[in-house]
Amino acid sequence: MPKSFLPVSGLVLPRFAGVATFMRLPHMMLDSDDVSDVHVGLVGVPWDGGTTNRPGARHGPRQLRDLSTMIRRINPASGIDPFLRCNCADLGDVGVNPADVKDTMTRVTDFYDRLVSLGIVPMTAGGDHLLSLPVLRALAKGGPLGMIHFDSHTDLQAGHFGGFRYTHGTPFRRAVEEGLLDPTAVVQIGVRGTMYDGEDIDFAKANGIRVIRIEELMDRGVAAVMTEARAIVGSKRIYVSFDIDAIDPSQAPGTGTPEIGGFTTFDAQRMVRLLENLEIVGADLVEVSPPLDPSGNTAWVGVSIMFELLCAMVPAVERRHSA
Amino acid sequence: MPKSFLPVSGLVLPRFAGVATFMRLPHMMLDSDDVSDVHVGLVGVPWDGGTTNRPGARHGPRQLRDLSTMIRRINPASGIDPFLRCNCADLGDVGVNPADVKDTMTRVTDFYDRLVSLGIVPMTAGGDHLLSLPVLRALAKGGPLGMIHFDSHTDLQAGHFGGFRYTHGTPFRRAVEEGLLDPTAVVQIGVRGTMYDGEDIDFAKANGIRVIRIEELMDRGVAAVMTEARAIVGSKRIYVSFDIDAIDPSQAPGTGTPEIGGFTTFDAQRMVRLLENLEIVGADLVEVSPPLDPSGNTAWVGVSIMFELLCAMVPAVERRHSA
Amino acid sequence: MPKSFLPVSGLVLPRFAGVATFMRLPHMMLDSDDVSDVHVGLVGVPWDGGTTNRPGARHGPRQLRDLSTMIRRINPASGIDPFLRCNCADLGDVGVNPADVKDTMTRVTDFYDRLVSLGIVPMTAGGDHLLSLPVLRALAKGGPLGMIHFDSHTDLQAGHFGGFRYTHGTPFRRAVEEGLLDPTAVVQIGVRGTMYDGEDIDFAKANGIRVIRIEELMDRGVAAVMTEARAIVGSKRIYVSFDIDAIDPSQAPGTGTPEIGGFTTFDAQRMVRLLENLEIVGADLVEVSPPLDPSGNTAWVGVSIMFELLCAMVPAVERRHSA
Amino acid sequence: MPKSFLPVSGLVLPRFAGVATFMRLPHMMLDSDDVSDVHVGLVGVPWDGGTTNRPGARHGPRQLRDLSTMIRRINPASGIDPFLRCNCADLGDVGVNPADVKDTMTRVTDFYDRLVSLGIVPMTAGGDHLLSLPVLRALAKGGPLGMIHFDSHTDLQAGHFGGFRYTHGTPFRRAVEEGLLDPTAVVQIGVRGTMYDGEDIDFAKANGIRVIRIEELMDRGVAAVMTEARAIVGSKRIYVSFDIDAIDPSQAPGTGTPEIGGFTTFDAQRMVRLLENLEIVGADLVEVSPPLDPSGNTAWVGVSIMFELLCAMVPAVERRHSA
Amino acid sequence: MPKSFLPVSGLVLPRFAGVATFMRLPHMMLDSDDVSDVHVGLVGVPWDGGTTNRPGARHGPRQLRDLSTMIRRINPASGIDPFLRCNCADLGDVGVNPADVKDTMTRVTDFYDRLVSLGIVPMTAGGDHLLSLPVLRALAKGGPLGMIHFDSHTDLQAGHFGGFRYTHGTPFRRAVEEGLLDPTAVVQIGVRGTMYDGEDIDFAKANGIRVIRIEELMDRGVAAVMTEARAIVGSKRIYVSFDIDAIDPSQAPGTGTPEIGGFTTFDAQRMVRLLENLEIVGADLVEVSPPLDPSGNTAWVGVSIMFELLCAMVPAVERRHSA
Amino acid sequence: MPKSFLPVSGLVLPRFAGVATFMRLPHMMLDSDDVSDVHVGLVGVPWDGGTTNRPGARHGPRQLRDLSTMIRRINPASGIDPFLRCNCADLGDVGVNPADVKDTMTRVTDFYDRLVSLGIVPMTAGGDHLLSLPVLRALAKGGPLGMIHFDSHTDLQAGHFGGFRYTHGTPFRRAVEEGLLDPTAVVQIGVRGTMYDGEDIDFAKANGIRVIRIEELMDRGVAAVMTEARAIVGSKRIYVSFDIDAIDPSQAPGTGTPEIGGFTTFDAQRMVRLLENLEIVGADLVEVSPPLDPSGNTAWVGVSIMFELLCAMVPAVERRHSA
Repeated sequence: MPKSFLPVSGLVLPRFAGVATFMRLPHMMLDSDDVSDVHVGLVGVPWDGGTTNRPGARHGPRQLRDLSTMIRRINPASGIDPFLRCNCADLGDVGVNPADVKDTMTRVTDFYDRLVSLGIVPMTAGGDHLLSLPVLRALAKGGPLGMIHFDSHTDLQAGHFGGFRYTHGTPFRRAVEEGLLDPTAVVQIGVRGTMYDGEDIDFAKANGIRVIRIEELMDRGVAAVMTEARAIVGSKRIYVSFDIDAIDPSQAPGTGTPEIGGFTTFDAQRMVRLLENLEIVGADLVEVSPPLDPSGNTAWVGVSIMFELLCAMVPAVERRHSA
Repeated sequence: MPKSFLPVSGLVLPRFAGVATFMRLPHMMLDSDDVSDVHVGLVGVPWDGGTTNRPGARHGPRQLRDLSTMIRRINPASGIDPFLRCNCADLGDVGVNPADVKDTMTRVTDFYDRLVSLGIVPMTAGGDHLLSLPVLRALAKGGPLGMIHFDSHTDLQAGHFGGFRYTHGTPFRRAVEEGLLDPTAVVQIGVRGTMYDGEDIDFAKANGIRVIRIEELMDRGVAAVMTEARAIVGSKRIYVSFDIDAIDPSQAPGTGTPEIGGFTTFDAQRMVRLLENLEIVGADLVEVSPPLDPSGNTAWVGVSIMFELLCAMVPAVERRHSA
Repeated sequence: MPKSFLPVSGLVLPRFAGVATFMRLPHMMLDSDDVSDVHVGLVGVPWDGGTTNRPGARHGPRQLRDLSTMIRRINPASGIDPFLRCNCADLGDVGVNPADVKDTMTRVTDFYDRLVSLGIVPMTAGGDHLLSLPVLRALAKGGPLGMIHFDSHTDLQAGHFGGFRYTHGTPFRRAVEEGLLDPTAVVQIGVRGTMYDGEDIDFAKANGIRVIRIEELMDRGVAAVMTEARAIVGSKRIYVSFDIDAIDPSQAPGTGTPEIGGFTTFDAQRMVRLLENLEIVGADLVEVSPPLDPSGNTAWVGVSIMFELLCAMVPAVERRHSA
Repeated sequence: MPKSFLPVSGLVLPRFAGVATFMRLPHMMLDSDDVSDVHVGLVGVPWDGGTTNRPGARHGPRQLRDLSTMIRRINPASGIDPFLRCNCADLGDVGVNPADVKDTMTRVTDFYDRLVSLGIVPMTAGGDHLLSLPVLRALAKGGPLGMIHFDSHTDLQAGHFGGFRYTHGTPFRRAVEEGLLDPTAVVQIGVRGTMYDGEDIDFAKANGIRVIRIEELMDRGVAAVMTEARAIVGSKRIYVSFDIDAIDPSQAPGTGTPEIGGFTTFDAQRMVRLLENLEIVGADLVEVSPPLDPSGNTAWVGVSIMFELLCAMVPAVERRHSA
Repeated sequence: MPKSFLPVSGLVLPRFAGVATFMRLPHMMLDSDDVSDVHVGLVGVPWDGGTTNRPGARHGPRQLRDLSTMIRRINPASGIDPFLRCNCADLGDVGVNPADVKDTMTRVTDFYDRLVSLGIVPMTAGGDHLLSLPVLRALAKGGPLGMIHFDSHTDLQAGHFGGFRYTHGTPFRRAVEEGLLDPTAVVQIGVRGTMYDGEDIDFAKANGIRVIRIEELMDRGVAAVMTEARAIVGSKRIYVSFDIDAIDPSQAPGTGTPEIGGFTTFDAQRMVRLLENLEIVGADLVEVSPPLDPSGNTAWVGVSIMFELLCAMVPAVERRHSA
Repeated sequence: MPKSFLPVSGLVLPRFAGVATFMRLPHMMLDSDDVSDVHVGLVGVPWDGGTTNRPGARHGPRQLRDLSTMIRRINPASGIDPFLRCNCADLGDVGVNPADVKDTMTRVTDFYDRLVSLGIVPMTAGGDHLLSLPVLRALAKGGPLGMIHFDSHTDLQAGHFGGFRYTHGTPFRRAVEEGLLDPTAVVQIGVRGTMYDGEDIDFAKANGIRVIRIEELMDRGVAAVMTEARAIVGSKRIYVSFDIDAIDPSQAPGTGTPEIGGFTTFDAQRMVRLLENLEIVGADLVEVSPPLDPSGNTAWVGVSIMFELLCAMVPAVERRHSA
């Protein structure tokens, strides 16, 4: 009965009313009976245990849910009505331990293992970027994935603070090392900001990761860059990771490690729309830090991108369920 | 099975995690089957249609739910564990029409009529103070109620803007006129601020409403004042209405019509605790306006007072259900 | 004596000094004798009674006046000195009733009827977008107007909340239905954001309204789009309505219904400058909501656009007065 | 025709509407004809040229006017309706030069000389505390004044930065030296905060200024302290100077040099009310710094105290005009 | 040469100028030669790894240094000039690892071991409250300490999130278990807020810790309570720990776990002053969270209390150095 | 020993830890012995004495230092590691007198005279734009300099407030008049905003200053404009002055006199990078006003541009020291 998966309309109940779930979708716990009907699960990982600089992303899912009640039904550019084409639900937050990184990584992977076994495609709201690692540990059980990664940083650092290996600057270094990502099918878009020593870029080059710096994106334009990105990942199963700090900090100030000179939300929308029809097996939107933007403007950008990601995922999800 | 009415503990799931319901209680729609087990219903009325000055109280319920996830289980002063002694639930928000005052009043009264018919005692989160009027229209169907009213204003104005009768400055004038309140059993505590013309005070005097101005409260102390208030309402069925602007604006800045020189949150806690065992048939906490305090500090005061109100209501609720 | 209509210079009195009127112009009440010399009247409509989502635009005129004291004399791009070429004055605010939509609409139309009878061209500062409807009811008494409309929304909705017809999402639907606008001479620029069901777009198409979505604007550029817009309205008498949410929310965050991916203030300036010499009979700048941007940055954008609108109106006003 | 000096009522025009003048009083320029009917002039001095630490008080008058539109007619404690008993008007701001301290002092004194010659009692809104010096230079032309001074600082420093003599820490040292104040009729209430070297306190002692530190105020209570203060000034002509930082910074955070551990707004109200009937020849409320509190909460405290000061001044003003 | 340990005066260099060190004291690294002359070391622990709720205290030391430049020389109540009587210096921050709790605890203890060996008494700026545990591990090497502890929480929890033992809710439970504190010489003042299950209070009772709840403090007054506290610790070597959330959140909103109904800053000042002459071997001021109060008002309260703590420590430090 | 001039790495000590100096460089006083090894001195001028509108820039250096701790080592676009190629140090702030413009100008020039005599190239953090004048008085002792000036204003005004000649709107008028700048080698980029009377533009034209308005920059692009700018200054010794208000206020809101419609931070980065190898003898970044952006986002833009300026200066500095 897909009707029950439709969000409450703002023409009926004002957007500011009601308990806030992601995009006003029904809220289900993973152990409820209905969960087997879900195609796409919107999940929060309220965690910033990997943050080396300014914390606060643990509050991301709450604020993202709040602002997401301003999302309506239809994508105006593509005409896609994602909630009609797939059963989407808010599956709540993973139960994290804010004071213990390794314990939380296990909890995240356990949660996503269950999603995989239920055939649910996850759309994750962070949380800091370290969460992508335990998510990939669950999603890549069937083999290494490709990835399209929007970010101002590579997140390919070796470690911090005397060799500590699990921070929000290291998830994809670890993911490559653990065989969760196929580096030759990884594209990073929007990279910029001052560098420590460039060792992360060396790692990218040595492993075949394609890094598209902001200057290249600005010079070539989003269409050309996305054509290349699509060519690199081809028909592989891919993960899409969108760090809100990829967007210029004037448009998304609520994040812990901003870098000036980023691309616009309009560019972001166009790029994510160009992901349509790729074989996306999961996506995340990370690093929204509400204490750094109590206005909610950054979270509004975040959920607007989540909606675009959702629309981009729909065709592949639909294909699988109609197959 | 009362266990299902217990909130999720912050020792298990961090307070910032999970979909935000009032005090982390289960969320139920009025048409769900379980609702018949509910003793106390926490309801939001996200509405500021009666606001003559600075709007924003329509966003109150959302922010109050957010902050309420920091409430724990037990009242440290009285030892009361309200969630164990009564079945409490979040019953969502009333569906309001922000652009039509009279339509919304009807919708509110309809919602509370259903609560009354289900035997659920309402603990309302506003919204502006006009909401008390349609709530009283439902609760006072069995006869006029007494009221203990904490506020910096009397809310007994005749009207605004050329005779408009339904604003957040008039609800109790209307309620007395409509026979919903017994004015001789009404006590108003904390009144202050510059006056238009004093006509509201004249109305109070003429009808036997007891107005305790802030100077009297400060001089006599909270214990003496509450002893008098309890004597006035006696064993009558009463409503408790708490306007957040009763508290000093330094402690509750997020409200539309602040008046300096108020009482403290500590005084508020002591006064509400002294309501214990009165025959409370409903309560509200109104006028928290999140746009005027994005930090959530005012909402935190609001939900802390809601918790105290809940604890004060428990004995009477329990009596009725064990009777 | 036109000299008395010149604003106080910031080289003489610091910008932060003095009672704040629009652009430091003289303040006149509609019933004063001098008002007959006024050519352009700057008027506030401090009202958000039609707001379906986040309120606050009622505070717009106050904050716009405050920030407008930073406007100097001369448009640097066109060299126009509007205050020298027309007599401009601050005519104060319309007396609204924040709790009654229909009463306020009558009050607004009455006020603008008087402006029309005095031959004063209004430059309105909102307030929410519903105000354009009662303004048009006064201005279109001589026949339907054309309109150039900058907005992220069409404001052509049928209604909200069970058929309520007067909200800030419906003014131009009503204006077309009431014959105040000639839909074939209406151009909407900058439309974007998720859609409820697209019924507003259907209405636009069915009635010949030209909707230029943001993607088209970005692809074709502002010059091409404005050339088309000018061709559509030709020499008709037109109204110009500028919703601040047309601009990207990073540049104008203080508004109730933001949509990411908008155009820049620089684009806005260029587009408004390209309105020069059109037969403008009135203009408004709406939806600045100060509680959502206490910094005043959004209001600064708003008054900067008001100044451009004023410069665009000057030639036609001057023509009429010199005719 | 005193009626024209009555403020616009918030029961008629909403408080947020209209051009903001002090307490919604008529705005008059010093050179207008009507000004000779004015008894009490509310004047802004938008200046922080004497500020040694955090600037922003130059923006005080604008924000104080904005918030002052929330003041109603009648003092609820005393029943005084000041606008009915005296002709009050907003006389605008003194034209200051923000970059030149001495030039501005001359401009301020010139402005107040004119007030004195017109028989207008000034109620000044600052601006930083240095403004009291040029004001006193005008008001004390008839001989040294007494003063009741609420502040967390003595403002009796010798100088700053290598002997610079005119800062907001020195006005009353200069005023005593220049014979504008009779130090034996000066009382300072609320003094606290860490000290540089205590030389200001030595000066106070040597000259007979009575300094009542916050500990003494808290121990003895406001009534006892005010009885003493009244006895010290007796029937002398006095100036009342209220620095907003006298109040605890939690209640008035928007000020440049806060000191924790202050008295409350309720205490402030009670103390100012106890000034009633003293021979007040002028008063000021200074050091509200809007950039340090964009919410306006501090300005709201400020104008609420200005209203109390106005009520305290009314009897003496009335006496003089009825004499 | 004690002169070099005097802070730069605000009468010479404006308070906002210069590199910000604690109270404008000289900055020294632990390995510099001069450090052997230091009597009291002000140290930052920029860490919130133990925070179970809202993070941000890692930014505390930076903001506390910034605001501390507004501290002058002399305590106005006691006349103590601490910088003249002891050599005080800013010893910088401990190098923490924000993502690893146990590693950081080791680093903190190592740093304080060095202070102990140098005979430097530490005045610590947090950081979340967990930091007191590794500090006590260094300071209590000579035997269990007494403690006077100002807080709204006991911080005596057994653990969080399935038995995790090191959070900011557990430091003193661990310290008692590890023999670092003598529980019979521990007093906790200001405790309040809703309770999980009261198990922490049971632990306090079972071990002889004296918990003075806020109601008792309000009823008995600060003098009586401090007399008792002094009697309990007697002449023992004690640690003083001041959690900023002990103070009412209206006065100190920038903290992660606020509880309404607290004591005032004035009460705090009076209580800390009553610690004078006790045998204090270290003190901390913790839980200032700048992202939750970007205004710095909370940090200003924090450093003002640090100054009082410093003055309270001076006599004992002086005794030891003159002995 | 250049190693001691390297900043502390964020991979070792978290960015939020430690006393904040510019870019985590060593802090040296001008009278220390080591200062003779410094090649580039980062200096703060915490002063807004010339500000005619909104103050606050005096707090700029403090906040810029705070945010600058997020700068890493290497410029990602050019690969330049400035700290390795030159000895850079934080030389503290000039001791200003906030209440006396002329005194402060003397103090600034004295400080920079010492830098010149030490052969240190200054990179200044403001402070308002008037500071460029006393800096140029020191730097241009060897003859008039060229200048590349990024700003939304020309800062070529004749005077303010009745002929006052020293404000932040006049420094380069004065510098040309005093022979400190060669006007034919001055380029101003990004000029926009409403004009008083255009007299500053007349002065520019009459003296051969090249003003590139924003429309020209947008139309021609940054590369073409910078090619022209480089041609104009050729191999002359030049000063680079970057007013943060040159950047669009959505990206740099924390400034006193914003003008909408500016260029982006990305454009700014590209333009400053195109200054590489010019004969730069000093640079400043001015008009960051922290009270107008407590979030620090504007300061983050500011220090990011300072880093680009530093990289642009390095080749010339290196040439001189290797010569």
